[in-house]
Amino acid sequence: MTGIHVIGSGHTAFGRFDARSLEDLEVEAAREALVEAEMPGEGIDAVFLGHFNGGMAADGFASSLVHQADDGLRFKPATRVENACASGSAAIHAGINAIRAGQARNVLVVGVEKMTHRTTEEVTAALGSAGYQGHPDEAGLSFPQVFARVAEAYRERYGNPMTAMARIAAKNHANAMGNPLAQMRRELSVEACDTVSDKNPLIAPPLRLSDCSLISDGAAAVVLSGTPGPVGASVHIAAATHVSDFLPMHRRDVLAFEGPKRAVAQAYDALGITAKDVHFAEVHDCFTIAELLMYEALGLCGPGQGARLLEEGVVHKGGSLPVNPSGGLKAKGHPVGATGVSMHALAFRQLTGRAGEIQVPGAGVGLVVNMGGAAVANYATILEAGSGRR
Amino acid sequence: MTGIHVIGSGHTAFGRFDARSLEDLEVEAAREALVEAEMPGEGIDAVFLGHFNGGMAADGFASSLVHQADDGLRFKPATRVENACASGSAAIHAGINAIRAGQARNVLVVGVEKMTHRTTEEVTAALGSAGYQGHPDEAGLSFPQVFARVAEAYRERYGNPMTAMARIAAKNHANAMGNPLAQMRRELSVEACDTVSDKNPLIAPPLRLSDCSLISDGAAAVVLSGTPGPVGASVHIAAATHVSDFLPMHRRDVLAFEGPKRAVAQAYDALGITAKDVHFAEVHDCFTIAELLMYEALGLCGPGQGARLLEEGVVHKGGSLPVNPSGGLKAKGHPVGATGVSMHALAFRQLTGRAGEIQVPGAGVGLVVNMGGAAVANYATILEAGSGRR
Repeated sequence: MTGIHVIGSGHTAFGRFDARSLEDLEVEAAREALVEAEMPGEGIDAVFLGHFNGGMAADGFASSLVHQADDGLRFKPATRVENACASGSAAIHAGINAIRAGQARNVLVVGVEKMTHRTTEEVTAALGSAGYQGHPDEAGLSFPQVFARVAEAYRERYGNPMTAMARIAAKNHANAMGNPLAQMRRELSVEACDTVSDKNPLIAPPLRLSDCSLISDGAAAVVLSGTPGPVGASVHIAAATHVSDFLPMHRRDVLAFEGPKRAVAQAYDALGITAKDVHFAEVHDCFTIAELLMYEALGLCGPGQGARLLEEGVVHKGGSLPVNPSGGLKAKGHPVGATGVSMHALAFRQLTGRAGEIQVPGAGVGLVVNMGGAAVANYATILEAGSGRR
Repeated sequence: MTGIHVIGSGHTAFGRFDARSLEDLEVEAAREALVEAEMPGEGIDAVFLGHFNGGMAADGFASSLVHQADDGLRFKPATRVENACASGSAAIHAGINAIRAGQARNVLVVGVEKMTHRTTEEVTAALGSAGYQGHPDEAGLSFPQVFARVAEAYRERYGNPMTAMARIAAKNHANAMGNPLAQMRRELSVEACDTVSDKNPLIAPPLRLSDCSLISDGAAAVVLSGTPGPVGASVHIAAATHVSDFLPMHRRDVLAFEGPKRAVAQAYDALGITAKDVHFAEVHDCFTIAELLMYEALGLCGPGQGARLLEEGVVHKGGSLPVNPSGGLKAKGHPVGATGVSMHALAFRQLTGRAGEIQVPGAGVGLVVNMGGAAVANYATILEAGSGRR
């Protein structure tokens, strides 16, 4: 099977950018990735865009805007891929398929979202449309409400997760301090996150503001290739898995996070490795309770045991498996369609030793877990330094 | 390279179905395709959904609704693919890639759209979002206005196309009379289509109502496989190409239809064939002027020469290359995300001799051309009877 290599990355800052259009964001990230890959548009064989939209952007045909980045892209096939908050990884995996299928040698993958020009109510409704609308118990729920149910179920089954969730928020905010691309660079203490206050109100009880990721504008990009990058700056996709569960929550045990568990297990199994072999992970912390459950999916602990990892510092900077060194969706920001591509782009920079202040020393194996809905569309990718040609 | 075979098809009627949800339509088409393929959900390795939405449907995560068709689909990866009015073919081509990449042996592809619950103004705005919003000359144009510009440009460069366009409308309406799945089964004379009247008003001058495709609900599905179907009911994908042009019309000669021309030429070249070797074509007649230009893309005539084919009956039932025997978008209907999948599903039925009253006698090679935007995302697929193992 053809090796898949990451040979370039682009990443706008995440934040609120009133003056910049969806096209502007796509173009900036795409151009940076092409420059980093030393690849003119003519060298690209296919383009994939990860983008959710859900009514937030006026551009209904966003895949075709990537061509605005480089005249050499004219006539190159471009495709938008959407799987709710996992749209970015969906585009990455589509790009991998295109190379493995022999349809492309070099692929440009871009992820983008523009959200901050909408009111919080509009954004909440747009994202909420990714829940199941066909059952009266679930139709119209916002995602804070969905994950509030998950946190409630966690408390009932395993005990109170709220302090563990506050530790996750504080950790990810601390991590983002070293990431110049992050939207929110402000230290928050565990105590502040664990206290309901004017500054940290309940959003959907028991979830507090500090348990929720951000509303963001931003884009990220990578160039994937069947040919390795230069020695020393070479990273390959060692495993890429995708597992989709039923959408309706009443058809499954949401707390079991079966989809993410299966996706990660399949990726580990493909390489014969375990969590012990992974040097860092960028995982989907749309809400802090999601990251707590991701620790189980990563195989770091059994059901309901995530709090221990936070108490022991396992998942913190300097721990044995730092989780979300970038600051995560929580503090880096969560421009929905860009998120999965951002995870891969920053993992690429980690694995080539170019992650600056958020660098995980000696990182050779990175894991990305990106999730659409409440454990519905689940993607795991393992990236490794080197060309993989042993 | 792995051969790609079509081994099952599903197709709801196209029309107005107030009582049926997006999920209902997906499930009906998916189940029919699985039954026809004699494939339980467990046998499917990946699901792709073609769906535009653009704000028309309240379901923002529609790929995950396909799983409602069959419990055996649980944990199978599902992905939505969107490329405006070519979303259906985008999903087909993604499914082909998944098989060629070795990620799947059997793929379920579904296309769906639900539009008629919206007002015509809402649908027009949703579809219009697929135009370029970044230039004052193009932002906010409706697609009837876009193709009215194309028809005007045609008149200026080549002479008046309106009677030829009326002939296309009348042909496609006549064809749909034999298609029980078609939304509009009513004969319309060339004269009626070529006359502006109370029943046939100007929509965007010079386009008349009869020049425009329909607003429709509907879904279609196919099962693709790396393994051929039974002898006698075997169809394979002989060529599949995708060419994306710039979105802004001011950056290109829209009338040249360069994207569709290149996509079809690449497909022909892959097989060493010409239009003479094709027995029927389902092409993108979102507006009658588009079908007129598609004749050039198919290589049936030179620039501005399409009218002759209609006068001579070349593209009619019984002609040497019948175009849109199904009735096309014009009369079969155009549920946007379903359209490309419908073209492939009905081509499969033609090539297995199961097309009923719309059967093209002796059809062994069929061409599908599906287009997103005004010649922006262009897909050509050549399907052939038999397993392709010569």
